[in-house]
Amino acid sequence: MNDIRVDIDPALLTHHVERLGELGELPGGGMARLQYDSSWAEAQDLVATWMREAGLRVRRDAVGNVFGRLPGTDDSRTILTGSHIDTVPEGGKYDGALGVLAGLAALRALAARDERPQISLEVVSLCEEESSRFQANFFGSRAMLGLVGQEEPRTLKDADGVTMAEAMVAVGLDPAAVATAKRDDVAAFVELHIEQGKVLESAGVDVGVVEVITGLIWEQVVVTGRQDHAGGTPMDDRLDAVQAAAEITAEITRHVAGADGAGRVTFGRWDVRPGWPSIVPGEVVLSMDLRHTDPADLRKRATEAREIAAAVAARRGVEVTFERLKDETPTRMDPWLRQALADAAAVCGATSMGLPSGAGHDSQLMGEHVPAAMLFVPSVEGRSHCKEEFTRPEDCVRGATVLATALHRLAY
Amino acid sequence: MNDIRVDIDPALLTHHVERLGELGELPGGGMARLQYDSSWAEAQDLVATWMREAGLRVRRDAVGNVFGRLPGTDDSRTILTGSHIDTVPEGGKYDGALGVLAGLAALRALAARDERPQISLEVVSLCEEESSRFQANFFGSRAMLGLVGQEEPRTLKDADGVTMAEAMVAVGLDPAAVATAKRDDVAAFVELHIEQGKVLESAGVDVGVVEVITGLIWEQVVVTGRQDHAGGTPMDDRLDAVQAAAEITAEITRHVAGADGAGRVTFGRWDVRPGWPSIVPGEVVLSMDLRHTDPADLRKRATEAREIAAAVAARRGVEVTFERLKDETPTRMDPWLRQALADAAAVCGATSMGLPSGAGHDSQLMGEHVPAAMLFVPSVEGRSHCKEEFTRPEDCVRGATVLATALHRLAY
Repeated sequence: MNDIRVDIDPALLTHHVERLGELGELPGGGMARLQYDSSWAEAQDLVATWMREAGLRVRRDAVGNVFGRLPGTDDSRTILTGSHIDTVPEGGKYDGALGVLAGLAALRALAARDERPQISLEVVSLCEEESSRFQANFFGSRAMLGLVGQEEPRTLKDADGVTMAEAMVAVGLDPAAVATAKRDDVAAFVELHIEQGKVLESAGVDVGVVEVITGLIWEQVVVTGRQDHAGGTPMDDRLDAVQAAAEITAEITRHVAGADGAGRVTFGRWDVRPGWPSIVPGEVVLSMDLRHTDPADLRKRATEAREIAAAVAARRGVEVTFERLKDETPTRMDPWLRQALADAAAVCGATSMGLPSGAGHDSQLMGEHVPAAMLFVPSVEGRSHCKEEFTRPEDCVRGATVLATALHRLAY
Repeated sequence: MNDIRVDIDPALLTHHVERLGELGELPGGGMARLQYDSSWAEAQDLVATWMREAGLRVRRDAVGNVFGRLPGTDDSRTILTGSHIDTVPEGGKYDGALGVLAGLAALRALAARDERPQISLEVVSLCEEESSRFQANFFGSRAMLGLVGQEEPRTLKDADGVTMAEAMVAVGLDPAAVATAKRDDVAAFVELHIEQGKVLESAGVDVGVVEVITGLIWEQVVVTGRQDHAGGTPMDDRLDAVQAAAEITAEITRHVAGADGAGRVTFGRWDVRPGWPSIVPGEVVLSMDLRHTDPADLRKRATEAREIAAAVAARRGVEVTFERLKDETPTRMDPWLRQALADAAAVCGATSMGLPSGAGHDSQLMGEHVPAAMLFVPSVEGRSHCKEEFTRPEDCVRGATVLATALHRLAY
């Protein structure tokens, strides 16, 4: 360990954030840079160029992750930093991208130093985290961990029916080669990310060191009633799928909100069929996103949600089914890495605090297999997954400086 | 008046119903024959051909209504029968179409008789009733009544942004000529239609004579909250538009259902934005379809719905707005025409009963300007606006026979 502070190039980081934010920018503001679309491909190319300019050895793997490596005297192990390049539809330009660019800034600063790291350092721009186009579930991290099935690219489809394999071919990747993305040299993963909440802002603290990443369950809920004429069908003779879905949503939301302060539930996607004002809807397909930092409470809420839905369905005479699309256990971050981040903050004169992450991250999956840690920088008003998402340039720079300093402590 | 029974050609009517039902048929069953689309144009051409074959004088007006005329000795006045040719998306092949084809069968039978009517008879295939593509509000009837504004075809747009004027030009109509569709010779309008409810089926009665057509209010409800990250935002710091919309829907539905047996409310169309599982929805746009046979109760429920929504919005900290897209007063059917239908049923050996219509119809608007009446035939299980919509061939034939017999009583 050491107490050397590693400063990054603040103007270059700010420029990179703005420039990358142009790729996938929507006309009305906000971002849609979805896995394997053209803005995604352009972004990965640009990041690769910037890595090369930073003096790093650039490599792409079979799923489109882009790596920039600073070899250590021991080149058999790697401390990896970075985050994901994709966004949600109508997301912001900091979620994911800032972690890539802060990692790049940190490795650029370290590469410029006279000394060589003992352990190799690498920054990664991960291909996918948001399931923004495919139900891909941390595709980039999973590929590195060897957890992607050989058949997945052929079976996963986007909303237009395009398979992931087709989308990969369109950006020059070989879907048959996904297994080659696996690597066994990663000794640690350190991810900088925006907080996506208001804890740091409210506390007036510079950076956050994540203690635990929330667990997450995604269910696809299908409510099936009976399609009927809105005028010809009396209220007491209806099997109205929307009314049942509305009651299910309202009751589960009230239950989760009332149970404790740590659970969160969101019904963000609704498909009401056939979707016509004068037709009693016969079917509603909706998403349930359920989160909790405690594994037992997460299971409990998920069970209770199904019970509430079944009770409403019985009362309304409709059918309801749940299909689990994601099931991610809460992940505790590595204590040694957390300490390194907190120490680095102190060296850089930044205040820090421990906090949970309500959002899921690549570090969640990585942390189940290798030591992992996350550094949070403040989100203005806690906004994210929206065009108002914003982190002040000075907070971006401070975070990247703490990251660079922590990587120096870990690798040198 | 007379007690002559006029029989129609049962096999031909059944054939026409099946054949017309192929135009706009969906791969999975059901119909989507939307105003001015290609299946609509094909259907109007086919109906015109059949009218010509029936010995009627065929004419099309500026908005695409198709008429088949059997001139009377007094050719200055017209008793009009018929219904609309368009369907809702995922509708059935009886709603509207059966009224056109029963009118055609009736006039074919009457044209084949040796005697000539005193008053001219005409069957119409109206271009639009369902607002299935444009918010066109009985466009065909309104055009005949001179109630279409000169600018309407240019301002009304479908979901893809196509103006009605563009759609008219695509099927060979001149949008500048809509005013020429107005006519002043209509002495009465008699419409056969499927019941779209279970009253006749439950009572075991052959035909229904409509006493009053329900009033209808369509509101576009916009709930505006705040888009946020589903993981980073605690439950007590959300302005979740879906949760507010769900509570509004559930509470208004329960209120209308509990108020009396005659009110009906449906929230059939939902647009949840941005529509992503991990994003707290910032906006929901939903349709409210409210109906009542009593004008005062209809107003009262509409006011109460707004009050309920405002209370939920205040409680949840979101905004809610209502925009009224349709406002149709309940319309009482003409007593003299009703009596003629009931008498004709008796002549034909069909049982009949009076009943209200929960669905809106062209007769509603027509009935505000000229004497109008409706004859209902049974819907199996009351199903309509869905692919399961079905009326037995014998019920179609019986209804058309009663219609033909009633028109004979009225015009000869």
